[in-house]
Amino acid sequence: MARPRPSDILVTYRVETPGSPEALAAKIASDQSTGTFVDLPGETPELKARAAARVVAFERLDTAGAPSLPARGAAFNRAHVTIAYPLEAVGTDLSALTTVALGGVWSIKEFTGLRVVGLELPSEFDGVYPGPQFGIDGSRRLTGVYERPIIGTIIKPALGLAPDETADVVDELIKSGVDFIKDDEKLMSPPYSSLEARVTAIMPLIRDHEQLTGKKVMYAFGISDVDPDEMVRKHDMVVREGGNAAVININSIGMGAFLFLRRRSSLALHAHRNGWDLLTRHPGLGFDFSVYQQLWRLLGVDQFQINGIGAKYWEPDESFIQSFHDLQKPIFHDADRPLPVVCSGQWGGQAPETYRRTGQTVDHLYLCGGGVVSHPGGPAAGVKAVRAAWDAAIAGVDLQDYAKSHPELAQALAKFGAKSPTSEGK
Amino acid sequence: MARPRPSDILVTYRVETPGSPEALAAKIASDQSTGTFVDLPGETPELKARAAARVVAFERLDTAGAPSLPARGAAFNRAHVTIAYPLEAVGTDLSALTTVALGGVWSIKEFTGLRVVGLELPSEFDGVYPGPQFGIDGSRRLTGVYERPIIGTIIKPALGLAPDETADVVDELIKSGVDFIKDDEKLMSPPYSSLEARVTAIMPLIRDHEQLTGKKVMYAFGISDVDPDEMVRKHDMVVREGGNAAVININSIGMGAFLFLRRRSSLALHAHRNGWDLLTRHPGLGFDFSVYQQLWRLLGVDQFQINGIGAKYWEPDESFIQSFHDLQKPIFHDADRPLPVVCSGQWGGQAPETYRRTGQTVDHLYLCGGGVVSHPGGPAAGVKAVRAAWDAAIAGVDLQDYAKSHPELAQALAKFGAKSPTSEGK
Repeated sequence: MARPRPSDILVTYRVETPGSPEALAAKIASDQSTGTFVDLPGETPELKARAAARVVAFERLDTAGAPSLPARGAAFNRAHVTIAYPLEAVGTDLSALTTVALGGVWSIKEFTGLRVVGLELPSEFDGVYPGPQFGIDGSRRLTGVYERPIIGTIIKPALGLAPDETADVVDELIKSGVDFIKDDEKLMSPPYSSLEARVTAIMPLIRDHEQLTGKKVMYAFGISDVDPDEMVRKHDMVVREGGNAAVININSIGMGAFLFLRRRSSLALHAHRNGWDLLTRHPGLGFDFSVYQQLWRLLGVDQFQINGIGAKYWEPDESFIQSFHDLQKPIFHDADRPLPVVCSGQWGGQAPETYRRTGQTVDHLYLCGGGVVSHPGGPAAGVKAVRAAWDAAIAGVDLQDYAKSHPELAQALAKFGAKSPTSEGK
Repeated sequence: MARPRPSDILVTYRVETPGSPEALAAKIASDQSTGTFVDLPGETPELKARAAARVVAFERLDTAGAPSLPARGAAFNRAHVTIAYPLEAVGTDLSALTTVALGGVWSIKEFTGLRVVGLELPSEFDGVYPGPQFGIDGSRRLTGVYERPIIGTIIKPALGLAPDETADVVDELIKSGVDFIKDDEKLMSPPYSSLEARVTAIMPLIRDHEQLTGKKVMYAFGISDVDPDEMVRKHDMVVREGGNAAVININSIGMGAFLFLRRRSSLALHAHRNGWDLLTRHPGLGFDFSVYQQLWRLLGVDQFQINGIGAKYWEPDESFIQSFHDLQKPIFHDADRPLPVVCSGQWGGQAPETYRRTGQTVDHLYLCGGGVVSHPGGPAAGVKAVRAAWDAAIAGVDLQDYAKSHPELAQALAKFGAKSPTSEGK
């Protein structure tokens, strides 16, 4: 088997086929570089040495009884296959990488399952892309929150509030002591609530509160727009009014538009990975998050939503924990690590398990939507409850015990404790 | 059941669940508009009327015995569900549409399968996006080809040729009489063959041939780049040298970057949908092409690759035929129809079946890579064979009969006839 060269781009696939996984591995390497369906006169040994992708690792896995894609048969052979793509043939353009190694592969006929489970970029990619501008340290600096998670919440209801109604909600949320507020990712600039109207209604409240208390609440406005020129115009409007963050629906705008924005941005870019589930939810198809997140970190995501323990969505806790660890690993440098955003169905009750399973770190944004705004005592009590839960988690005190001296936490446990089961039981 | 309003955006899903599909339909409508995991004080009837998505059609399908996503059970209930999203809540921004209706839906826990099978946009979307600049008529005007398919080929080997070697191939292909040549989608601007070097080496050949013969071969250069500024720079370089087309890997750059380019483009934009297979190949997950293609047509794709009969990839012939018909249907106007690009494993043998099953139209680009360049008589013979196959198809003459007086076709039948089976046998 060929050895990888230091400059190779290494992509690991989990393949599944009723046929030979060795043959499938060779076919992927050929199809995604020099090959076509017939022999070619120009396909010389010299050319192949320059451009051909090569299989550099192959590990048989256990056979699957059921195929990932509908197919007949009783046994499907599986393997982990690592293919080395020459940097000379791909370059450092991420759209070339996705086309060659992370795109066309799913067109190959012979597999019943194909998932990209590993990506190792050579050092030649270091410095080509801007990476996070704020990340963990910048998010702490902008919010002034240290030595505990940044506590965030979301405007609810997600859709339907007029800008002045939104401002009323924001006013209450600011006074609740929360560190971060965001638009729901589904709220961008619809006719009934244009971004401009929201920015105009909300930013004076943020500024006034900062004047009064010295605390600047980070507000992430939904500035996504399929038109990059328009998105930058929206970005500039937020900056002009003193805002410091934006929610970006990364899959909806795409890699190019995100990079275009990042190169012009002075906001912390908070990524919502809407649609990601389609790319990862079937275990035999698509991508591991460990691969996907690398692309977006290089492009410059500052804060990355990754669900949480006991999420309201389909994602299992183990997957969330793995995602958290993925974001903690430098690609090339510590500074390319974005701030993990723990979210979905969070209310504080998951703090102990989150703390323990993420390596006892507090470097994240802990985002509670309904968990804050639907607290029986209102948002201020909701924020107190979440803060208390994290204090207890960090101190290693049981939440029920801590709640005896923290009535807001007691109220949260009573209201949400039955609704958001965690994997450690209740 | 609610009735749709004329301005509603209608999205039809095929849902699959071990539970109640009616309940799942209601959950999609709620989650993708106003709802969260707890009741909210601000979720008033007025707000719901403004922003709530509503189920407007529901049709039970037969029960599936196996789930699309791995799950336990013996019966999975399926239904077609149409949800009306209020235009007031979404607006006409395509990144909002994908976020709300075509993105977050896959995060919902309760389904074992979810596929978007229909999209009907209200007339408010008409004119918001540029649409195709060239499409069918413009592609014919630029190539000067009428009353037959535009015949195209692809530089092979796909990767590895130096620019001067590519130019040698192009020189031979131009002289073959082909109408259209393209870079392989995997070739963009790698170190060994920068786009600039290719444009500089190739365009003089195109221009000289035009001077000599009056025929301008359309050459589609791979100008995709994850950086939109850089992509426009590449576009401008091609224009400056007299080029008139470009290959764009639409999924790799994303919707925003494509729109950015389209708004500045004077090239025919030839879309390669790399990675599309992951979004459509599992029949219980992802998208029908009928939905996906609408977004890219609105954004401005001029020529759309959709495979062909007997493709070398996984896609069944029926799926290709359906895609062809999808592209033929106006969204709002005839002019929003791109030129279908019939491709993958094509060599002419599929012409009769393609002609018959696409409604006897010749409005497409028929793209043969290996099928032209690997013809035993060389590319010129390859083009002659393909032209002959189409002449025969249009005249309703059997290929074997026609080959008696067309030796290049006879050679092609002998070489490729056994390798590229079509669904109608050989």
